[in-house]
Amino acid sequence: MTPFEAKLTATAKRTEELLNELLSTDTRPQETARPTHLIEAMHYGALNGGKRLRPFLVVESAAMFGGDREAAFRIGAALECLHSYSLVHDDLPAMDDDKLRRGKPTVHIAFDEATAILAGDALLTYAFDIIAAPETALGDRARIELVLALARAAGVGGMAGGQALDLAAEKRSPDEQGIITLQAMKTGALIRFACEAGAIIASARPEDRMRLRRFGEIVGRAFQLADDLLDLTSDAATLGKAAGKDAARGKGTLVALKGQDWAEAELDRLVEEATDLIAVYGDRAATLIDTARFVAKRKS
Amino acid sequence: MTPFEAKLTATAKRTEELLNELLSTDTRPQETARPTHLIEAMHYGALNGGKRLRPFLVVESAAMFGGDREAAFRIGAALECLHSYSLVHDDLPAMDDDKLRRGKPTVHIAFDEATAILAGDALLTYAFDIIAAPETALGDRARIELVLALARAAGVGGMAGGQALDLAAEKRSPDEQGIITLQAMKTGALIRFACEAGAIIASARPEDRMRLRRFGEIVGRAFQLADDLLDLTSDAATLGKAAGKDAARGKGTLVALKGQDWAEAELDRLVEEATDLIAVYGDRAATLIDTARFVAKRKS
Repeated sequence: MTPFEAKLTATAKRTEELLNELLSTDTRPQETARPTHLIEAMHYGALNGGKRLRPFLVVESAAMFGGDREAAFRIGAALECLHSYSLVHDDLPAMDDDKLRRGKPTVHIAFDEATAILAGDALLTYAFDIIAAPETALGDRARIELVLALARAAGVGGMAGGQALDLAAEKRSPDEQGIITLQAMKTGALIRFACEAGAIIASARPEDRMRLRRFGEIVGRAFQLADDLLDLTSDAATLGKAAGKDAARGKGTLVALKGQDWAEAELDRLVEEATDLIAVYGDRAATLIDTARFVAKRKS
Repeated sequence: MTPFEAKLTATAKRTEELLNELLSTDTRPQETARPTHLIEAMHYGALNGGKRLRPFLVVESAAMFGGDREAAFRIGAALECLHSYSLVHDDLPAMDDDKLRRGKPTVHIAFDEATAILAGDALLTYAFDIIAAPETALGDRARIELVLALARAAGVGGMAGGQALDLAAEKRSPDEQGIITLQAMKTGALIRFACEAGAIIASARPEDRMRLRRFGEIVGRAFQLADDLLDLTSDAATLGKAAGKDAARGKGTLVALKGQDWAEAELDRLVEEATDLIAVYGDRAATLIDTARFVAKRKS
Protein backbone atom coordinates (compact mmCIF):
# COMPACT_ATOMS: atom_id res chain seq x y z
CA MET A 1 0.00 0.00 0.00
CA THR A 2 1.39 3.42 -0.96
CA PRO A 3 1.33 6.25 1.62
CA PHE A 4 -1.46 7.81 -0.45
CA GLU A 5 -3.54 4.62 -0.33
CA ALA A 6 -2.98 4.39 3.43
CA LYS A 7 -4.30 7.93 3.80
CA LEU A 8 -7.32 7.17 1.62
CA THR A 9 -8.05 4.02 3.63
CA ALA A 10 -7.76 5.85 6.95
CA THR A 11 -10.23 8.53 5.81
CA ALA A 12 -12.64 5.86 4.55
CA LYS A 13 -12.46 4.13 7.93
CA ARG A 14 -13.11 7.33 9.86
CA THR A 15 -15.97 8.23 7.48
CA GLU A 16 -17.56 4.84 8.00
CA GLU A 17 -17.30 5.12 11.77
CA LEU A 18 -19.04 8.47 11.53
CA LEU A 19 -21.74 7.13 9.18
CA ASN A 20 -22.22 4.20 11.50
CA GLU A 21 -22.81 6.57 14.38
CA LEU A 22 -25.05 8.92 12.35
CA LEU A 23 -27.15 6.00 11.06
CA SER A 24 -27.46 4.14 14.33
CA THR A 25 -30.87 2.80 15.37
CA ASP A 26 -30.34 3.95 18.96
CA THR A 27 -33.22 6.08 20.19
CA ARG A 28 -32.66 9.83 20.11
CA PRO A 29 -34.05 11.94 22.96
CA GLN A 30 -36.15 14.21 20.67
CA GLU A 31 -37.91 11.37 18.86
CA THR A 32 -41.02 9.46 19.83
CA ALA A 33 -40.50 6.49 17.52
CA ARG A 34 -37.59 5.18 15.44
CA PRO A 35 -38.51 3.47 12.19
CA THR A 36 -35.80 0.84 12.71
CA HIS A 37 -36.36 -0.98 9.42
CA LEU A 38 -35.93 2.26 7.44
CA ILE A 39 -32.75 3.22 9.31
CA GLU A 40 -31.34 -0.26 8.69
CA ALA A 41 -31.98 0.20 4.96
CA MET A 42 -30.29 3.63 5.03
CA HIS A 43 -27.33 2.12 6.90
CA TYR A 44 -27.14 -0.74 4.40
CA GLY A 45 -27.23 1.68 1.47
CA ALA A 46 -24.64 4.07 2.92
CA LEU A 47 -22.19 1.53 4.40
CA ASN A 48 -21.61 -0.39 1.20
CA GLY A 49 -17.81 -0.44 1.19
CA GLY A 50 -17.04 2.32 -1.27
CA LYS A 51 -13.65 4.03 -1.50
CA ARG A 52 -15.16 7.19 0.04
CA LEU A 53 -13.43 9.31 -2.55
CA ARG A 54 -15.84 12.23 -2.12
CA PRO A 55 -15.33 12.57 1.65
CA PHE A 56 -11.58 12.28 1.03
CA LEU A 57 -11.75 15.22 -1.39
CA VAL A 58 -13.71 17.27 1.17
CA VAL A 59 -11.24 16.49 3.96
CA GLU A 60 -8.10 17.09 1.87
CA SER A 61 -9.43 20.28 0.25
CA ALA A 62 -10.33 21.64 3.67
CA ALA A 63 -6.90 20.61 5.01
CA MET A 64 -5.12 22.46 2.21
CA PHE A 65 -6.72 25.72 3.41
CA GLY A 66 -6.39 24.91 7.12
CA GLY A 67 -10.13 24.21 7.60
CA ASP A 68 -11.52 22.38 10.64
CA ARG A 69 -10.91 18.65 10.23
CA GLU A 70 -13.86 17.40 12.29
CA ALA A 71 -16.28 19.65 10.42
CA ALA A 72 -14.82 18.41 7.13
CA PHE A 73 -15.45 14.80 8.14
CA ARG A 74 -19.05 15.60 8.96
CA ILE A 75 -19.56 17.38 5.63
CA GLY A 76 -17.92 14.37 3.98
CA ALA A 77 -20.39 12.06 5.73
CA ALA A 78 -23.29 14.28 4.61
CA LEU A 79 -22.04 14.12 1.04
CA GLU A 80 -21.71 10.34 1.29
CA CYS A 81 -25.35 10.10 2.47
CA LEU A 82 -26.37 12.11 -0.57
CA HIS A 83 -24.21 10.05 -2.92
CA SER A 84 -25.64 6.85 -1.41
CA TYR A 85 -29.19 8.05 -1.96
CA SER A 86 -28.40 8.49 -5.66
CA LEU A 87 -27.04 4.93 -5.89
CA VAL A 88 -30.07 3.45 -4.08
CA HIS A 89 -32.50 5.24 -6.41
CA ASP A 90 -30.44 4.61 -9.57
CA ASP A 91 -30.52 0.88 -8.82
CA LEU A 92 -34.35 0.74 -8.63
CA PRO A 93 -36.24 -1.40 -11.16
CA ALA A 94 -37.74 1.68 -12.86
CA MET A 95 -34.25 3.16 -13.25
CA ASP A 96 -31.15 1.01 -13.99
CA ASP A 97 -32.69 -2.14 -12.48
CA ASP A 98 -29.50 -3.38 -10.83
CA LYS A 99 -29.58 -6.32 -8.46
CA LEU A 100 -25.96 -6.10 -7.34
CA ARG A 101 -23.71 -3.28 -6.19
CA ARG A 102 -20.15 -4.04 -5.10
CA GLY A 103 -21.09 -7.70 -5.15
CA LYS A 104 -23.92 -7.30 -2.64
CA PRO A 105 -27.70 -7.23 -3.24
CA THR A 106 -28.93 -3.68 -3.88
CA VAL A 107 -31.23 -2.08 -1.27
CA HIS A 108 -34.50 -2.90 -3.04
CA ILE A 109 -33.39 -6.56 -3.25
CA ALA A 110 -32.11 -6.82 0.34
CA PHE A 111 -35.20 -4.95 1.65
CA ASP A 112 -38.03 -4.09 -0.74
CA GLU A 113 -38.76 -1.45 -3.34
CA ALA A 114 -40.87 0.84 -1.14
CA THR A 115 -38.21 0.77 1.57
CA ALA A 116 -35.48 1.52 -0.99
CA ILE A 117 -37.37 4.57 -2.29
CA LEU A 118 -37.91 5.83 1.26
CA ALA A 119 -34.34 5.06 2.35
CA GLY A 120 -33.04 7.10 -0.59
CA ASP A 121 -35.39 9.97 0.26
CA ALA A 122 -34.34 9.86 3.90
CA LEU A 123 -30.60 9.74 3.06
CA LEU A 124 -30.99 12.78 0.81
CA THR A 125 -32.86 14.65 3.54
CA TYR A 126 -30.35 13.58 6.17
CA ALA A 127 -27.47 15.12 4.22
CA PHE A 128 -28.96 18.58 4.82
CA ASP A 129 -29.72 17.72 8.45
CA ILE A 130 -26.06 16.87 9.06
CA ILE A 131 -24.79 20.10 7.47
CA ALA A 132 -27.22 22.25 9.47
CA ALA A 133 -26.90 20.36 12.78
CA PRO A 134 -25.11 22.18 15.62
CA GLU A 135 -22.70 19.23 15.96
CA THR A 136 -21.14 20.29 12.64
CA ALA A 137 -19.20 23.12 14.24
CA LEU A 138 -19.12 25.71 11.46
CA GLY A 139 -20.28 29.29 11.15
CA ASP A 140 -23.76 29.99 9.79
CA ARG A 141 -22.36 31.53 6.59
CA ALA A 142 -20.28 28.44 5.74
CA ARG A 143 -23.20 26.15 6.55
CA ILE A 144 -25.69 28.00 4.38
CA GLU A 145 -23.20 28.13 1.49
CA LEU A 146 -22.68 24.38 1.84
CA VAL A 147 -26.44 23.77 1.80
CA LEU A 148 -26.85 25.89 -1.32
CA ALA A 149 -23.85 24.41 -3.13
CA LEU A 150 -24.94 20.84 -2.30
CA ALA A 151 -28.57 21.44 -3.31
CA ARG A 152 -27.39 22.87 -6.65
CA ALA A 153 -24.92 19.99 -7.20
CA ALA A 154 -27.65 17.42 -6.50
CA GLY A 155 -30.66 19.09 -8.13
CA VAL A 156 -32.03 19.69 -11.65
CA GLY A 157 -28.92 21.58 -12.72
CA GLY A 158 -26.69 18.84 -11.29
CA MET A 159 -26.95 15.15 -10.46
CA ALA A 160 -30.73 14.66 -10.74
CA GLY A 161 -30.79 16.62 -13.99
CA GLY A 162 -27.89 14.54 -15.31
CA GLN A 163 -29.72 11.33 -14.45
CA ALA A 164 -32.76 12.64 -16.36
CA LEU A 165 -30.57 13.40 -19.40
CA ASP A 166 -29.08 9.89 -19.03
CA LEU A 167 -32.55 8.30 -19.17
CA ALA A 168 -33.32 10.36 -22.28
CA ALA A 169 -29.97 9.28 -23.79
CA GLU A 170 -31.15 5.66 -23.83
CA LYS A 171 -33.71 6.72 -26.44
CA ARG A 172 -31.56 9.14 -28.42
CA SER A 173 -27.77 9.05 -28.21
CA PRO A 174 -26.22 12.43 -27.42
CA ASP A 175 -23.23 13.77 -29.38
CA GLU A 176 -19.81 14.39 -27.82
CA GLN A 177 -20.79 17.72 -26.24
CA GLY A 178 -24.04 16.14 -25.02
CA ILE A 179 -22.13 13.32 -23.30
CA ILE A 180 -19.73 15.80 -21.67
CA THR A 181 -22.60 17.88 -20.33
CA LEU A 182 -24.53 14.84 -19.10
CA GLN A 183 -21.51 13.42 -17.28
CA ALA A 184 -20.53 16.78 -15.81
CA MET A 185 -23.99 16.90 -14.25
CA LYS A 186 -24.56 13.25 -13.35
CA THR A 187 -21.23 12.39 -11.75
CA GLY A 188 -19.17 15.58 -12.02
CA ALA A 189 -21.33 17.87 -9.89
CA LEU A 190 -20.86 15.97 -6.60
CA ILE A 191 -17.11 15.61 -7.10
CA ARG A 192 -16.88 19.31 -7.88
CA PHE A 193 -18.91 20.01 -4.74
CA ALA A 194 -16.53 17.85 -2.66
CA CYS A 195 -13.57 20.03 -3.67
CA GLU A 196 -15.44 23.32 -3.38
CA ALA A 197 -16.76 22.26 0.05
CA GLY A 198 -13.24 22.18 1.47
CA ALA A 199 -12.77 25.82 0.48
CA ILE A 200 -16.14 26.77 1.99
CA ILE A 201 -15.39 24.95 5.26
CA ALA A 202 -12.09 26.82 5.54
CA SER A 203 -13.72 30.15 4.55
CA ALA A 204 -11.14 30.41 1.78
CA ARG A 205 -11.06 33.45 -0.52
CA PRO A 206 -13.54 33.50 -3.43
CA GLU A 207 -10.75 32.98 -5.99
CA ASP A 208 -9.53 29.91 -4.08
CA ARG A 209 -13.06 28.56 -3.96
CA MET A 210 -13.41 29.06 -7.72
CA ARG A 211 -10.07 27.33 -8.32
CA LEU A 212 -11.09 24.32 -6.22
CA ARG A 213 -14.38 24.21 -8.08
CA ARG A 214 -12.51 24.08 -11.36
CA PHE A 215 -10.13 21.44 -9.95
CA GLY A 216 -13.17 19.38 -8.94
CA GLU A 217 -14.61 19.66 -12.44
CA ILE A 218 -11.45 18.25 -13.96
CA VAL A 219 -11.21 15.44 -11.38
CA GLY A 220 -14.89 14.68 -12.09
CA ARG A 221 -14.17 14.33 -15.82
CA ALA A 222 -11.20 12.09 -15.10
CA PHE A 223 -13.31 9.99 -12.73
CA GLN A 224 -15.99 9.39 -15.36
CA LEU A 225 -13.54 8.71 -18.15
CA ALA A 226 -11.68 6.16 -15.98
CA ASP A 227 -15.06 4.62 -15.13
CA ASP A 228 -15.99 4.27 -18.78
CA LEU A 229 -12.59 2.71 -19.54
CA LEU A 230 -13.01 0.24 -16.66
CA ASP A 231 -16.51 -0.66 -17.84
CA LEU A 232 -14.98 -1.59 -21.20
CA THR A 233 -11.82 -3.38 -20.05
CA SER A 234 -12.57 -4.98 -16.66
CA ASP A 235 -14.43 -8.10 -15.76
CA ALA A 236 -17.26 -8.37 -13.23
CA ALA A 237 -15.05 -9.87 -10.51
CA THR A 238 -12.75 -6.83 -10.46
CA LEU A 239 -15.57 -4.31 -10.66
CA GLY A 240 -18.01 -5.99 -8.26
CA LYS A 241 -20.79 -5.23 -10.72
CA ALA A 242 -21.74 -6.29 -14.21
CA ALA A 243 -19.06 -5.13 -16.68
CA GLY A 244 -19.72 -3.91 -20.22
CA LYS A 245 -23.14 -2.79 -18.98
CA ASP A 246 -23.08 0.67 -20.46
CA ALA A 247 -22.10 -0.61 -23.87
CA ALA A 248 -24.81 -3.30 -23.69
CA ARG A 249 -27.41 -0.61 -22.97
CA GLY A 250 -26.15 1.42 -25.89
CA LYS A 251 -25.20 4.25 -23.56
CA GLY A 252 -22.84 6.56 -25.35
CA THR A 253 -19.55 7.16 -23.60
CA LEU A 254 -16.60 9.22 -24.77
CA VAL A 255 -14.51 6.04 -24.81
CA ALA A 256 -16.98 4.37 -27.19
CA LEU A 257 -17.04 7.49 -29.34
CA LYS A 258 -13.32 8.32 -29.44
CA GLY A 259 -11.52 5.10 -28.55
CA GLN A 260 -9.36 3.73 -25.76
CA ASP A 261 -6.11 5.38 -26.89
CA TRP A 262 -7.70 8.79 -26.94
CA ALA A 263 -9.19 8.16 -23.50
CA GLU A 264 -5.83 7.21 -21.99
CA ALA A 265 -4.14 10.29 -23.44
CA GLU A 266 -7.04 12.48 -22.29
CA LEU A 267 -6.68 11.12 -18.74
CA ASP A 268 -2.98 12.11 -18.75
CA ARG A 269 -3.95 15.54 -20.01
CA LEU A 270 -6.60 15.98 -17.29
CA VAL A 271 -4.19 14.98 -14.52
CA GLU A 272 -1.72 17.53 -15.86
CA GLU A 273 -4.37 20.24 -16.04
CA ALA A 274 -5.51 19.51 -12.48
CA THR A 275 -1.91 19.55 -11.25
CA ASP A 276 -1.10 22.87 -12.94
CA LEU A 277 -4.25 24.44 -11.55
CA ILE A 278 -3.41 23.89 -7.89
CA ALA A 279 0.39 24.03 -8.17
CA VAL A 280 -0.01 27.58 -6.84
CA TYR A 281 -0.55 26.08 -3.35
CA GLY A 282 2.87 24.40 -3.40
CA ASP A 283 3.51 21.44 -1.10
CA ARG A 284 0.09 21.75 0.48
CA ALA A 285 -1.44 20.62 -2.83
CA ALA A 286 0.47 17.31 -2.89
CA THR A 287 -2.33 15.08 -1.60
CA LEU A 288 -4.94 16.56 -3.93
CA ILE A 289 -2.58 16.09 -6.88
CA ASP A 290 -2.06 12.46 -5.81
CA THR A 291 -5.84 12.11 -5.69
CA ALA A 292 -6.28 13.37 -9.24
CA ARG A 293 -3.69 10.85 -10.41
CA PHE A 294 -5.28 8.04 -8.39
CA VAL A 295 -8.73 8.81 -9.83
CA ALA A 296 -7.40 8.72 -13.39
CA LYS A 297 -5.32 5.56 -13.00
CA ARG A 298 -7.50 3.42 -10.73
CA LYS A 299 -8.17 -0.17 -11.72
CA SER A 300 -11.46 -0.69 -9.87
CA MET B 1 -66.74 32.85 0.02
CA THR B 2 -65.94 33.93 3.59
CA PRO B 3 -63.20 36.54 4.18
CA PHE B 4 -61.03 33.68 5.49
CA GLU B 5 -61.54 31.63 2.33
CA ALA B 6 -60.71 34.69 0.21
CA LYS B 7 -57.46 35.07 2.13
CA LEU B 8 -56.60 31.40 1.73
CA THR B 9 -57.35 31.57 -2.01
CA ALA B 10 -55.20 34.69 -2.46
CA THR B 11 -52.24 33.01 -0.74
CA ALA B 12 -52.70 29.88 -2.84
CA LYS B 13 -52.68 32.02 -5.99
CA ARG B 14 -49.53 33.89 -4.99
CA THR B 15 -47.85 30.59 -3.99
CA GLU B 16 -48.68 29.09 -7.36
CA GLU B 17 -47.32 32.10 -9.22
CA LEU B 18 -44.10 31.73 -7.27
CA LEU B 19 -43.90 27.95 -7.87
CA ASN B 20 -44.57 28.59 -11.54
CA GLU B 21 -41.64 30.97 -11.64
CA LEU B 22 -39.36 28.69 -9.58
CA LEU B 23 -40.18 25.66 -11.74
CA SER B 24 -39.97 27.39 -15.09
CA THR B 25 -38.06 25.67 -17.90
CA ASP B 26 -36.40 28.95 -18.91
CA THR B 27 -32.64 28.62 -19.10
CA ARG B 28 -30.71 29.90 -16.08
CA PRO B 29 -27.39 31.67 -16.68
CA GLN B 30 -25.35 29.29 -14.46
CA GLU B 31 -26.57 26.11 -16.15
CA THR B 32 -25.25 24.39 -19.24
CA ALA B 33 -28.31 22.22 -19.92
CA ARG B 34 -31.88 22.16 -18.63
CA PRO B 35 -33.49 18.72 -18.37
CA THR B 36 -36.82 20.11 -19.61
CA HIS B 37 -38.77 16.87 -19.27
CA LEU B 38 -37.76 16.53 -15.60
CA ILE B 39 -38.68 20.14 -14.81
CA GLU B 40 -42.05 19.64 -16.49
CA ALA B 41 -42.67 16.62 -14.26
CA MET B 42 -41.68 18.65 -11.17
CA HIS B 43 -43.98 21.45 -12.28
CA TYR B 44 -46.82 18.99 -12.89
CA GLY B 45 -46.30 17.43 -9.46
CA ALA B 46 -46.10 20.73 -7.59
CA LEU B 47 -48.83 22.66 -9.42
CA ASN B 48 -51.58 20.17 -8.77
CA GLY B 49 -54.27 22.52 -7.45
CA GLY B 50 -53.97 21.93 -3.72
CA LYS B 51 -55.32 24.33 -1.11
CA ARG B 52 -51.74 25.35 -0.22
CA LEU B 53 -52.56 25.08 3.46
CA ARG B 54 -48.92 24.68 4.49
CA PRO B 55 -47.67 27.87 2.77
CA PHE B 56 -50.69 29.66 4.27
CA LEU B 57 -49.62 28.58 7.75
CA VAL B 58 -46.06 29.77 7.08
CA VAL B 59 -47.23 33.15 5.80
CA GLU B 60 -49.78 33.72 8.57
CA SER B 61 -47.46 32.56 11.37
CA ALA B 62 -44.76 34.88 10.08
CA ALA B 63 -47.30 37.71 9.79
CA MET B 64 -48.38 37.27 13.41
CA PHE B 65 -44.81 38.02 14.53
CA GLY B 66 -44.20 40.75 11.95
CA GLY B 67 -41.87 38.59 9.79
CA ASP B 68 -40.96 39.45 6.20
CA ARG B 69 -43.85 38.55 3.92
CA GLU B 70 -41.86 37.88 0.74
CA ALA B 71 -39.44 35.59 2.59
CA ALA B 72 -42.42 33.75 4.10
CA PHE B 73 -43.87 33.15 0.63
CA ARG B 74 -40.58 31.71 -0.55
CA ILE B 75 -40.31 29.42 2.48
CA GLY B 76 -43.93 28.45 1.81
CA ALA B 77 -43.02 27.57 -1.78
CA ALA B 78 -40.04 25.53 -0.57
CA LEU B 79 -42.30 23.64 1.82
CA GLU B 80 -44.78 23.02 -0.97
CA CYS B 81 -41.99 21.56 -3.15
CA LEU B 82 -41.13 19.23 -0.30
CA HIS B 83 -44.76 18.31 0.31
CA SER B 84 -45.23 17.67 -3.42
CA TYR B 85 -42.20 15.35 -3.50
CA SER B 86 -43.83 13.26 -0.78
CA LEU B 87 -47.06 12.99 -2.77
CA VAL B 88 -45.24 12.04 -5.99
CA HIS B 89 -43.29 9.27 -4.23
CA ASP B 90 -46.26 8.08 -2.13
CA ASP B 91 -48.26 7.59 -5.33
CA LEU B 92 -45.63 5.30 -6.91
CA PRO B 93 -46.58 1.68 -7.73
CA ALA B 94 -44.23 0.33 -5.02
CA MET B 95 -45.85 2.63 -2.45
CA ASP B 96 -49.60 3.45 -2.49
CA ASP B 97 -49.94 2.75 -6.23
CA ASP B 98 -52.35 5.62 -6.92
CA LYS B 99 -53.27 6.52 -10.47
CA LEU B 100 -55.25 9.66 -9.64
CA ARG B 101 -54.62 12.66 -7.42
CA ARG B 102 -57.16 15.48 -7.30
CA GLY B 103 -58.82 13.88 -10.31
CA LYS B 104 -55.69 14.07 -12.47
CA PRO B 105 -53.24 11.30 -13.45
CA THR B 106 -50.41 11.00 -10.93
CA VAL B 107 -46.87 11.91 -12.08
CA HIS B 108 -45.76 8.35 -12.87
CA ILE B 109 -48.90 7.91 -15.02
CA ALA B 110 -48.65 11.29 -16.80
CA PHE B 111 -44.88 10.81 -17.31
CA ASP B 112 -43.23 7.51 -16.32
CA GLU B 113 -42.02 5.86 -13.16
CA ALA B 114 -38.33 6.75 -13.50
CA THR B 115 -39.23 10.40 -14.15
CA ALA B 116 -41.58 10.41 -11.14
CA ILE B 117 -38.84 9.10 -8.83
CA LEU B 118 -36.39 11.71 -10.15
CA ALA B 119 -38.95 14.53 -10.05
CA GLY B 120 -39.64 13.73 -6.38
CA ASP B 121 -35.92 13.64 -5.62
CA ALA B 122 -35.39 16.95 -7.40
CA LEU B 123 -38.36 18.64 -5.66
CA LEU B 124 -37.01 17.53 -2.28
CA THR B 125 -33.56 18.87 -3.15
CA TYR B 126 -35.01 22.10 -4.54
CA ALA B 127 -36.76 22.85 -1.23
CA PHE B 128 -33.34 23.29 0.42
CA ASP B 129 -32.02 25.26 -2.57
CA ILE B 130 -34.89 27.77 -2.22
CA ILE B 131 -34.33 28.24 1.53
CA ALA B 132 -30.58 28.78 1.08
CA ALA B 133 -30.79 30.91 -2.09
CA PRO B 134 -29.87 34.59 -1.73
CA GLU B 135 -33.25 35.55 -3.23
CA THR B 136 -34.87 34.38 0.02
CA ALA B 137 -33.86 37.51 1.89
CA LEU B 138 -33.32 36.21 5.43
CA GLY B 139 -30.38 36.21 7.82
CA ASP B 140 -28.04 33.21 7.85
CA ARG B 141 -29.20 32.15 11.33
CA ALA B 142 -32.89 32.00 10.30
CA ARG B 143 -32.00 30.18 7.09
CA ILE B 144 -29.90 27.51 8.79
CA GLU B 145 -32.58 26.98 11.43
CA LEU B 146 -35.16 26.57 8.67
CA VAL B 147 -32.95 24.03 6.88
CA LEU B 148 -32.48 22.04 10.07
CA ALA B 149 -36.13 22.18 11.11
CA LEU B 150 -37.30 21.17 7.63
CA ALA B 151 -34.78 18.33 7.32
CA ARG B 152 -35.91 16.98 10.70
CA ALA B 153 -39.62 17.35 9.82
CA ALA B 154 -39.07 15.49 6.54
CA GLY B 155 -36.54 12.85 7.61
CA VAL B 156 -36.48 9.58 9.56
CA GLY B 157 -37.85 11.23 12.70
CA GLY B 158 -40.61 12.93 10.70
CA MET B 159 -42.41 12.41 7.40
CA ALA B 160 -40.20 9.72 5.81
CA GLY B 161 -40.13 7.80 9.10
CA GLY B 162 -43.91 8.09 9.38
CA GLN B 163 -44.33 6.73 5.88
CA ALA B 164 -42.09 3.77 6.82
CA LEU B 165 -44.24 3.11 9.91
CA ASP B 166 -47.31 3.37 7.68
CA LEU B 167 -45.97 0.68 5.34
CA ALA B 168 -45.28 -1.54 8.35
CA ALA B 169 -48.82 -0.85 9.63
CA GLU B 170 -50.27 -2.58 6.56
CA LYS B 171 -48.79 -5.80 7.93
CA ARG B 172 -49.47 -5.29 11.61
CA SER B 173 -52.10 -2.79 12.80
CA PRO B 174 -50.77 -0.34 15.40
CA ASP B 175 -52.69 0.45 18.59
CA GLU B 176 -54.11 3.89 19.39
CA GLN B 177 -50.77 5.33 20.56
CA GLY B 178 -49.07 3.79 17.54
CA ILE B 179 -51.54 5.48 15.18
CA ILE B 180 -51.07 8.83 16.93
CA THR B 181 -47.28 8.59 16.64
CA LEU B 182 -47.42 7.47 13.00
CA GLN B 183 -49.74 10.31 12.01
CA ALA B 184 -47.78 12.91 13.99
CA MET B 185 -44.75 11.93 11.93
CA LYS B 186 -46.30 11.26 8.54
CA THR B 187 -48.57 14.29 8.19
CA GLY B 188 -48.11 16.23 11.44
CA ALA B 189 -44.41 17.05 11.11
CA LEU B 190 -44.72 19.25 8.00
CA ILE B 191 -47.72 21.13 9.37
CA ARG B 192 -45.85 21.70 12.62
CA PHE B 193 -42.87 22.92 10.60
CA ALA B 194 -45.12 25.35 8.69
CA CYS B 195 -46.19 27.04 11.94
CA GLU B 196 -42.73 26.96 13.50
CA ALA B 197 -41.23 28.38 10.28
CA GLY B 198 -43.22 31.60 10.69
CA ALA B 199 -41.63 32.13 14.10
CA ILE B 200 -38.14 31.39 12.72
CA ILE B 201 -38.62 33.77 9.76
CA ALA B 202 -39.63 36.53 12.20
CA SER B 203 -36.77 35.68 14.61
CA ALA B 204 -39.42 35.32 17.33
CA ARG B 205 -38.39 34.49 20.92
CA PRO B 206 -37.72 30.81 21.72
CA GLU B 207 -40.90 30.54 23.81
CA ASP B 208 -42.96 31.88 20.89
CA ARG B 209 -41.32 29.42 18.55
CA MET B 210 -42.12 26.56 20.96
CA ARG B 211 -45.73 27.75 21.23
CA LEU B 212 -46.13 27.84 17.45
CA ARG B 213 -44.59 24.40 17.23
CA ARG B 214 -47.17 23.12 19.70
CA PHE B 215 -49.95 24.95 17.83
CA GLY B 216 -48.76 23.25 14.62
CA GLU B 217 -48.86 19.84 16.31
CA ILE B 218 -52.49 20.33 17.30
CA VAL B 219 -53.46 21.62 13.84
CA GLY B 220 -51.67 18.61 12.36
CA ARG B 221 -53.71 16.21 14.50
CA ALA B 222 -56.92 18.00 13.53
CA PHE B 223 -55.90 17.86 9.87
CA GLN B 224 -55.37 14.10 9.96
CA LEU B 225 -58.52 13.39 11.96
CA ALA B 226 -60.61 15.47 9.52
CA ASP B 227 -58.93 13.60 6.66
CA ASP B 228 -59.82 10.23 8.16
CA LEU B 229 -63.41 11.38 8.70
CA LEU B 230 -63.63 12.58 5.09
CA ASP B 231 -62.21 9.30 3.81
CA LEU B 232 -65.04 7.54 5.62
CA THR B 233 -67.95 9.87 4.82
CA SER B 234 -67.21 11.47 1.41
CA ASP B 235 -67.56 10.15 -2.08
CA ALA B 236 -64.84 10.18 -4.72
CA ALA B 237 -66.34 13.15 -6.61
CA THR B 238 -65.98 15.43 -3.58
CA LEU B 239 -62.53 14.18 -2.63
CA GLY B 240 -61.04 13.99 -6.14
CA LYS B 241 -59.56 10.64 -5.18
CA ALA B 242 -60.84 7.20 -4.29
CA ALA B 243 -62.85 7.36 -1.05
CA GLY B 244 -62.90 4.67 1.63
CA LYS B 245 -59.40 3.75 0.48
CA ASP B 246 -57.79 3.62 3.91
CA ALA B 247 -60.51 1.36 5.29
CA ALA B 248 -60.27 -0.90 2.22
CA ARG B 249 -56.52 -1.26 2.84
CA GLY B 250 -57.18 -2.10 6.46
CA LYS B 251 -55.20 0.96 7.54
CA GLY B 252 -56.03 1.73 11.14
CA THR B 253 -57.30 5.23 11.76
CA LEU B 254 -58.46 6.76 15.02
CA VAL B 255 -61.91 7.19 13.46
CA ALA B 256 -62.11 3.47 12.71
CA LEU B 257 -60.90 2.69 16.22
CA LYS B 258 -62.99 5.14 18.23
CA GLY B 259 -65.94 6.06 16.02
CA GLN B 260 -67.27 9.08 14.20
CA ASP B 261 -68.90 10.74 17.23
CA TRP B 262 -65.68 10.60 19.17
CA ALA B 263 -63.78 12.06 16.20
CA GLU B 264 -66.17 14.99 15.86
CA ALA B 265 -65.94 15.78 19.57
CA GLU B 266 -62.15 15.42 19.44
CA LEU B 267 -61.97 17.89 16.55
CA ASP B 268 -63.92 20.45 18.61
CA ARG B 269 -61.56 19.85 21.50
CA LEU B 270 -58.46 20.28 19.31
CA VAL B 271 -59.77 23.57 17.86
CA GLU B 272 -60.38 24.80 21.39
CA GLU B 273 -56.91 23.74 22.52
CA ALA B 274 -55.28 25.44 19.53
CA THR B 275 -57.30 28.61 20.15
CA ASP B 276 -56.41 28.75 23.85
CA LEU B 277 -52.76 28.23 23.08
CA ILE B 278 -52.34 31.29 20.87
CA ALA B 279 -54.99 33.50 22.52
CA VAL B 280 -52.02 35.18 24.21
CA TYR B 281 -51.33 36.99 20.91
CA GLY B 282 -54.77 38.66 20.96
CA ASP B 283 -56.21 39.93 17.70
CA ARG B 284 -53.06 39.07 15.77
CA ALA B 285 -53.91 35.38 16.27
CA ALA B 286 -57.32 35.65 14.56
CA THR B 287 -56.31 34.23 11.18
CA LEU B 288 -54.42 31.28 12.66
CA ILE B 289 -57.42 30.48 14.86
CA ASP B 290 -59.66 30.61 11.78
CA THR B 291 -57.20 28.26 10.08
CA ALA B 292 -57.40 25.70 12.88
CA ARG B 293 -61.21 25.81 12.64
CA PHE B 294 -61.11 25.53 8.83
CA VAL B 295 -58.77 22.54 8.97
CA ALA B 296 -61.03 20.71 11.44
CA LYS B 297 -64.31 21.47 9.66
CA ARG B 298 -63.32 21.22 5.98
CA LYS B 299 -65.48 19.12 3.69
CA SER B 300 -62.86 18.30 1.05
